[in-house]
Amino acid sequence: MKYIKQAMEYKELIDTLMSNKHHADIVLYGGNVVNVLTREVYNADIAIKGKYILLVGDCEDLIGENTIVVDVSGKYLSPGFIDSHMHFESSMLTVTEFSRLSIPSGTTTLIADPHEIGNALGPVGMKAMADEANVLPNHVRFVVPALTPDCPNLETAGVDVSSKDMEDLLNYKNIIGIGELQGFSNAKHVYKNTPEIITDLLASTTYAKSIGKVVDGNAPDLFGKELAAHIVCTGGKCSCHETTTKEECVEKLRQGVYVFMREGSTQKNMGECIKAITEEKLDSRRCILATDDMVAEDLEKLGHMNEIVKRTINQGVDPIEAIQMVTINPATYFGLEDRGILSPSKVADIAIINDLKEMDVEAVFIEGKLVASDKELLVPLPKYTYPDSVKNSVKREKLVDEDLEIRSDEKKVTVRAIKAIPDQNLTECLEEETTVKNSVVQSDVSNDLLYIACVERYGRNNNIGKAFVKGFGLKKGAFAESVAHDTHNITVVGTNIADMVVAVNKVIEMGGGIAVVNNQRVLEELRLPVGGLITDELTGSEVSEKIVSLEKTVSKGLGGSIHAPFMHLSFLALSTSPKWKITDKGLIDVNNFEILSPIV
Amino acid sequence: MKYIKQAMEYKELIDTLMSNKHHADIVLYGGNVVNVLTREVYNADIAIKGKYILLVGDCEDLIGENTIVVDVSGKYLSPGFIDSHMHFESSMLTVTEFSRLSIPSGTTTLIADPHEIGNALGPVGMKAMADEANVLPNHVRFVVPALTPDCPNLETAGVDVSSKDMEDLLNYKNIIGIGELQGFSNAKHVYKNTPEIITDLLASTTYAKSIGKVVDGNAPDLFGKELAAHIVCTGGKCSCHETTTKEECVEKLRQGVYVFMREGSTQKNMGECIKAITEEKLDSRRCILATDDMVAEDLEKLGHMNEIVKRTINQGVDPIEAIQMVTINPATYFGLEDRGILSPSKVADIAIINDLKEMDVEAVFIEGKLVASDKELLVPLPKYTYPDSVKNSVKREKLVDEDLEIRSDEKKVTVRAIKAIPDQNLTECLEEETTVKNSVVQSDVSNDLLYIACVERYGRNNNIGKAFVKGFGLKKGAFAESVAHDTHNITVVGTNIADMVVAVNKVIEMGGGIAVVNNQRVLEELRLPVGGLITDELTGSEVSEKIVSLEKTVSKGLGGSIHAPFMHLSFLALSTSPKWKITDKGLIDVNNFEILSPIV
Repeated sequence: MKYIKQAMEYKELIDTLMSNKHHADIVLYGGNVVNVLTREVYNADIAIKGKYILLVGDCEDLIGENTIVVDVSGKYLSPGFIDSHMHFESSMLTVTEFSRLSIPSGTTTLIADPHEIGNALGPVGMKAMADEANVLPNHVRFVVPALTPDCPNLETAGVDVSSKDMEDLLNYKNIIGIGELQGFSNAKHVYKNTPEIITDLLASTTYAKSIGKVVDGNAPDLFGKELAAHIVCTGGKCSCHETTTKEECVEKLRQGVYVFMREGSTQKNMGECIKAITEEKLDSRRCILATDDMVAEDLEKLGHMNEIVKRTINQGVDPIEAIQMVTINPATYFGLEDRGILSPSKVADIAIINDLKEMDVEAVFIEGKLVASDKELLVPLPKYTYPDSVKNSVKREKLVDEDLEIRSDEKKVTVRAIKAIPDQNLTECLEEETTVKNSVVQSDVSNDLLYIACVERYGRNNNIGKAFVKGFGLKKGAFAESVAHDTHNITVVGTNIADMVVAVNKVIEMGGGIAVVNNQRVLEELRLPVGGLITDELTGSEVSEKIVSLEKTVSKGLGGSIHAPFMHLSFLALSTSPKWKITDKGLIDVNNFEILSPIV
Repeated sequence: MKYIKQAMEYKELIDTLMSNKHHADIVLYGGNVVNVLTREVYNADIAIKGKYILLVGDCEDLIGENTIVVDVSGKYLSPGFIDSHMHFESSMLTVTEFSRLSIPSGTTTLIADPHEIGNALGPVGMKAMADEANVLPNHVRFVVPALTPDCPNLETAGVDVSSKDMEDLLNYKNIIGIGELQGFSNAKHVYKNTPEIITDLLASTTYAKSIGKVVDGNAPDLFGKELAAHIVCTGGKCSCHETTTKEECVEKLRQGVYVFMREGSTQKNMGECIKAITEEKLDSRRCILATDDMVAEDLEKLGHMNEIVKRTINQGVDPIEAIQMVTINPATYFGLEDRGILSPSKVADIAIINDLKEMDVEAVFIEGKLVASDKELLVPLPKYTYPDSVKNSVKREKLVDEDLEIRSDEKKVTVRAIKAIPDQNLTECLEEETTVKNSVVQSDVSNDLLYIACVERYGRNNNIGKAFVKGFGLKKGAFAESVAHDTHNITVVGTNIADMVVAVNKVIEMGGGIAVVNNQRVLEELRLPVGGLITDELTGSEVSEKIVSLEKTVSKGLGGSIHAPFMHLSFLALSTSPKWKITDKGLIDVNNFEILSPIV
């Protein structure tokens, strides 16, 4: 009977519109309305009553003596922005702290994929985030993984999520569907090697559709029959946020895929994808902008969806068409009928913009309340306390040196090394010669041949995967972190085993986090108590300062040469992207679904 | 667990796409695909498996020895067309017979508003139609009235439908939402005179939205605050199929209303509405084409949605944009995610067109089956037998002359006469002098002042409303019909009371239909056994011949001067459109919600 409450709210709006006895609470007077329905900008007022838009047009009649009239002449009024695909975990921030940074930029709705905490903690972790979202002023909705870990035979997650969990998860508050379908993004290999995954995914996706939920999908580099199979697997309406070329974007739009053109802190694909619109002139109704991964520093310094819209405009897209990609287009895709446009009965989520090309947001309304002005949040965010159940995700004994050693009876061996490539998820495969001392295979700092290991941290099997890595350039020491996509075991890279053990043990001791070590001494650390992924102890600004400082410790303290070393290490565990990766089960040959020995 | 069946069907598609062991059932080879997603036409094949589209693109790989390959080179492949708002009752045809005429034109989905049978028979009648639809090869879905009669205080329907019926109706098979919201289309008057209607409608619409159903609404000539109130009343996402001017169309698109540009047998509004696109260049994603009312003759001779698309193209709209208005746009509005585009996993509803500007449909596939070719239906339609419960809707005693007499003790009186206006629902109001004989007020054929009456036919109260009418031009006799919008009591017009009584009694005797009478002899009749509105005894061709013949009988036999006299008479009972109308309760002053005496 919840709908009766809704009926009563609407009745109040109708009474205000029809009776001449009631008035609007707020009238935004004389602004330029950005109409994403018709692609027009024109002069009009917006009247607000309670949390709803009452009228867009001439609102003179609705002004009473208690109405707050805000003169917005010369300014642009847009529906609040939607980020259609993002992970809070990438920012290491709680939902609350991320929201604190994103709301003042005009973002009023976040569609989050709690894929990382889902791997670490399963439904318990995802529900905690959904609970946190519930008390915030902005709208945060979740699309959950249908499968953890991504590759069940090749890695260990904290919790195995599958179709058995969908009824429970998909009917939980603020959860609106299934997120990125990692399990079938690499269609050919999954079909060949783990066909049971497809059967399980289909059970999840068809169930989700049967109860009116969305299924995102994700189809990087898929074309033709494989793309078709992926679309079928999602239940027919899907999105892809890892489209990287114009040709891929054109093909996906032709096949009905909603292309989430990604423009995040590290991965920037909008510039290529947008050519499907600017060069090929395709209908853009299924084009959507999303960030995927944003770090706190960028959010604070650059902005959020307003910045992404600005960059899209700079690619030659009409400003209103670009704004459609963060308003009406995603609202239509997600079936969020109560937002994304400025019209009667929609929630009054409004961004007030000074200049459409600059996309400088001056003020933000959410549900009829002024929540931000001049880049400052004006409302207090309630303090959400994460339950203990999400705070003790590291459940293994500390390591000793023997745990990380790779042993051989030879004098010299050829070893397999993952070659990290700057700013990419994918890697190359190398074979290198190195020496053995006291039956322990040695690293070779002069050749940038370092140790890498992945330590299962959930107390499920105590696996440790070991191999070699090139590309980090460390001259000494080691660093470890409990952020390692997508299962988030503890991953460590180092020049020597003793420092690696200290680093891993520090992360274990903290219950998750990042540790930088030299000479068996911890130089610097960051605690990430929530699932080993997120801090609930620092604000967004503090996190961004801390990461800068940690990175400096790696470069200056250890001589590391790769920028963003923690981000790069974390993606070396991602077993869905080619070619070689490290998981708790060992060195993974991604394309052949095989586990390789570190020694040839 | 119905979704598991869906999962298994999708698994078969994936196996066909991925394994190289299975093949498509049908490949439409080398056609020009009309891509309504991107607004492109390009050369591609379409592979079909079972009832689904498997692949759009190069389908060579999917051709096996049992695959039927159809060479469609030079032809255009479009998603099957959707008529988004139509009434079967207007054609007097059953769902089956209407489908027989509409499928060969490329219409694969019909969204029907069973508003007329709903007034006559309530849920029983609407469910019978939904049952009939269930056995047909095309897709017929229903949006049901939330309220019958339209104006509860001013007329009597067969059954009173209200919010109490919504749970039962909206969860019935093939019913996808609430249809045109007559009860609040005239916002100002309804709010003033019958505010309880708004409360009841809100209960219905918010319930419908809460279970994921659509609410059409309908907002003829509403602007500003009244339009806003109407939008709120529908729950925020609504359509209007009675928009008549460019300005109205622009305003509605700006406010988020889906404009169903109507182009039916009698009411033709597309030509005006489309100027919002051709002249104002607005985004057309919320523009949709619909017929509302189509007579059998037009369906047979002109076609259906293909004809409407052709006319839209003739107004200067790009052919693909026009086709979007009968495919992706309505599919998006109604949430029919399994159709409206050509892409993997969608149902294989395809219209094969020879020439995009002519929109001449050569063949039609529905769910992967060839169902029509060269304007001929190729599949047998199952015979649906309407239950007795919908066949005996006329439940009153026959009339005697006294029932229709208007009495006065004066010699001369001034009477109120409705002035019928050709091709319009609305009327003018006249006061005319006439004589009284034996205390009975007389008609005046020389002045075209005829009797009109509306006879309650459901056995609920035996009401008879009486007044005068001008505009029909009858020189003798009378005609009566059980089709009279929207409550469908028996309406009769005539020069003399004796003939009117015979005509009404003939309609009663037939259990519904049309009767033309002169000198107390029935000249011609048509039985309409289903709800007094529809024949299940004649085919579409036979109905269209019969109507032509009946109209000729009125013009030649009775001297009638108005064309389409039955249609015009039927709308003189429509108490939602100004100014004066006749219902079983009497002469209605629509704008003032008053019942007037026929004598001043």
